[in-house]
Amino acid sequence: MAPSPMIKTEVASAAATASKPTTNGKQAARLRFEDVFETLRNEIIADFASKGMPEDAVEWYKRSLNYNTPGGKLNRGLSVVDTVRILKGSDLTEEEYFKSALLGWCVELLQAFFLVSDDMMDNSVTRRGQPCWFRVDGVNMLAINDSFMLESAIYFLLRKHFRQDACYVDLLELFHDVTYLTEMGQLLDLITAPEDQVDLSKFSLERHRLIVVYKTAYYSFYLPVALAMHMSGIPVSQGSFKPYDAAKDILIPLGEYFQVQDDFLDFAGTPEQIGKIGTDILDNKCSWCINTALAVATPEQRALLDENYGRKDSAKERKVKEIYEELDMRGRYAKYEEGAYKKIIGLIESVPETPTADGSPVLKREVFKAFLDKIYKRTK
Amino acid sequence: MAPSPMIKTEVASAAATASKPTTNGKQAARLRFEDVFETLRNEIIADFASKGMPEDAVEWYKRSLNYNTPGGKLNRGLSVVDTVRILKGSDLTEEEYFKSALLGWCVELLQAFFLVSDDMMDNSVTRRGQPCWFRVDGVNMLAINDSFMLESAIYFLLRKHFRQDACYVDLLELFHDVTYLTEMGQLLDLITAPEDQVDLSKFSLERHRLIVVYKTAYYSFYLPVALAMHMSGIPVSQGSFKPYDAAKDILIPLGEYFQVQDDFLDFAGTPEQIGKIGTDILDNKCSWCINTALAVATPEQRALLDENYGRKDSAKERKVKEIYEELDMRGRYAKYEEGAYKKIIGLIESVPETPTADGSPVLKREVFKAFLDKIYKRTK
Repeated sequence: MAPSPMIKTEVASAAATASKPTTNGKQAARLRFEDVFETLRNEIIADFASKGMPEDAVEWYKRSLNYNTPGGKLNRGLSVVDTVRILKGSDLTEEEYFKSALLGWCVELLQAFFLVSDDMMDNSVTRRGQPCWFRVDGVNMLAINDSFMLESAIYFLLRKHFRQDACYVDLLELFHDVTYLTEMGQLLDLITAPEDQVDLSKFSLERHRLIVVYKTAYYSFYLPVALAMHMSGIPVSQGSFKPYDAAKDILIPLGEYFQVQDDFLDFAGTPEQIGKIGTDILDNKCSWCINTALAVATPEQRALLDENYGRKDSAKERKVKEIYEELDMRGRYAKYEEGAYKKIIGLIESVPETPTADGSPVLKREVFKAFLDKIYKRTK
Repeated sequence: MAPSPMIKTEVASAAATASKPTTNGKQAARLRFEDVFETLRNEIIADFASKGMPEDAVEWYKRSLNYNTPGGKLNRGLSVVDTVRILKGSDLTEEEYFKSALLGWCVELLQAFFLVSDDMMDNSVTRRGQPCWFRVDGVNMLAINDSFMLESAIYFLLRKHFRQDACYVDLLELFHDVTYLTEMGQLLDLITAPEDQVDLSKFSLERHRLIVVYKTAYYSFYLPVALAMHMSGIPVSQGSFKPYDAAKDILIPLGEYFQVQDDFLDFAGTPEQIGKIGTDILDNKCSWCINTALAVATPEQRALLDENYGRKDSAKERKVKEIYEELDMRGRYAKYEEGAYKKIIGLIESVPETPTADGSPVLKREVFKAFLDKIYKRTK
């Protein structure tokens, strides 16, 4: 069972008093995962150079891969490895580790492809504490093609390491599908909330849900788990049970919950907690907070939101925050979070774990609990 | 046998006196091919709408597909259908026509993906007689994501119509490979000849060859034929003969020749011939002409080229053209063309056409001759 809020707090304090092993364990896992990136990047570059590409092109590509792929929290990539381990129920062999980490890095490459291009479309300034790639001296619009190559590297790696595996086509199709769905979400987001054109009449909680599900939940939550399931040999159906549908039915709401939390923390989290200063109000983002506010605002509050939202002006931002407080955004979020948590727990507990007649690997509740535990009541 | 220059001219005059049937035949082929686009676009849009996407997003995607996919010469797409027909040796059934046209439209979608993004990277103004997509009112940087969706539509169509076919994985891998190779070529081109920074020391005929092969030849020549070969069931090897390698060995030089011709026509073709005014000199393009000039220029001519190439100034452009004439660019091109033609004819005639022991379909010289005939001595 996932911890209740109270138990969670206790676990957290216990971890705080004896935090070293956990922290070191996490760090070691991260370092081992990062080592695999070195190997994969070298393979990508060796292939590129083997085509007769000149030194300046080789250096360019290497720099783009290094600048854009590692450096994030790596949660998505690491969760592929964790999920393969949970599904196996014991430690991974060297080869299993390498291949699951490779799939994890493919998720990180996909994310790099999206982030490099999203930053251009959003006209962003920094990413992961450094200038966005397109702002690096001499890069500019070449970043578009660099983002394409980050995507193509995925299929190069899958072909090189999974071509002989039974799951190869499933992996390809999964990446195609999830890439496409994410692009659909990005389109929705861009036409709903252009950075320079405020029109709150386009916003709604339903529109927000669609954007979040397509733009974030599929690639951040469903993709890593589905990749791990394919690698672990979980078939598409086990009698009447459809493991991938079941995973999707849990992970999409989980991703939705995660993004709502992210939106809330952009408003309510301190810079110490979230590691950045929230700018959703200034940037006209189609956030859960503004959509919740719009759904319950009085006509007077609505007029103030129209006037002050998305205006690149900190006094106007303060005004929006005042209205959020008036509308009890914190209370509303706490209520949302409890509801989401309960709903997801219920879905997890309906996953069957009984062995199949043909002995094929089964889905485990622990896969989803591990995700939920990492997210529930997080403040960073 | 491909026509000699003289025979070619005679055929052309004969066609001119009784041109209607040919023109109508071509037009009819084009219209039939365009009808398939309507069907495919409707499938793409129906799938998109079925995911709960709101009307404004559906309209956006439809507009992007219509604006960016048809409207070109469609040579690449049509050549898939032509090649499947040649390989079969008789008329196609309705289903064969539809599936080969679908593959043709996938090539056109890939090209649309490249052109939309290339125009942004090159800061171009018009494409196919209309403003570049990113310059259309309200589009701007969203064009990046629109280009991604054009690419993703390829895999949606392949999955929908080829999933049960033996060649499915080959088709996926072929698109992955060729997409990646084209991106490599685009990178090379962008770092060699940035629009706003002239440095002719980066240019060379070898660099030009690499750019042309990767950026153009693979997707424009090898891809349509290899798709048709896979659809026709041509296996990867027939004894010691490797049909796909043989096709590549012919089509890559053919694509190189085509691009050199394109570069030459940008300089020497009249606007009536090429349907546009050449701007390669003004735009600092890494063209065959400038690289040929650099290879043979005296130090004085070289200094003038350094001073006048890529300068957005028509007087300087004229100076470069004078040097091209001094260096006998027309004579050099004629010589290049004869050499390329002879080499390619030789390669085509080494393709074995004898039936295989196991009765699998064989490659036909006619496939390549059809391409070469369309290109040789073209003036538009």
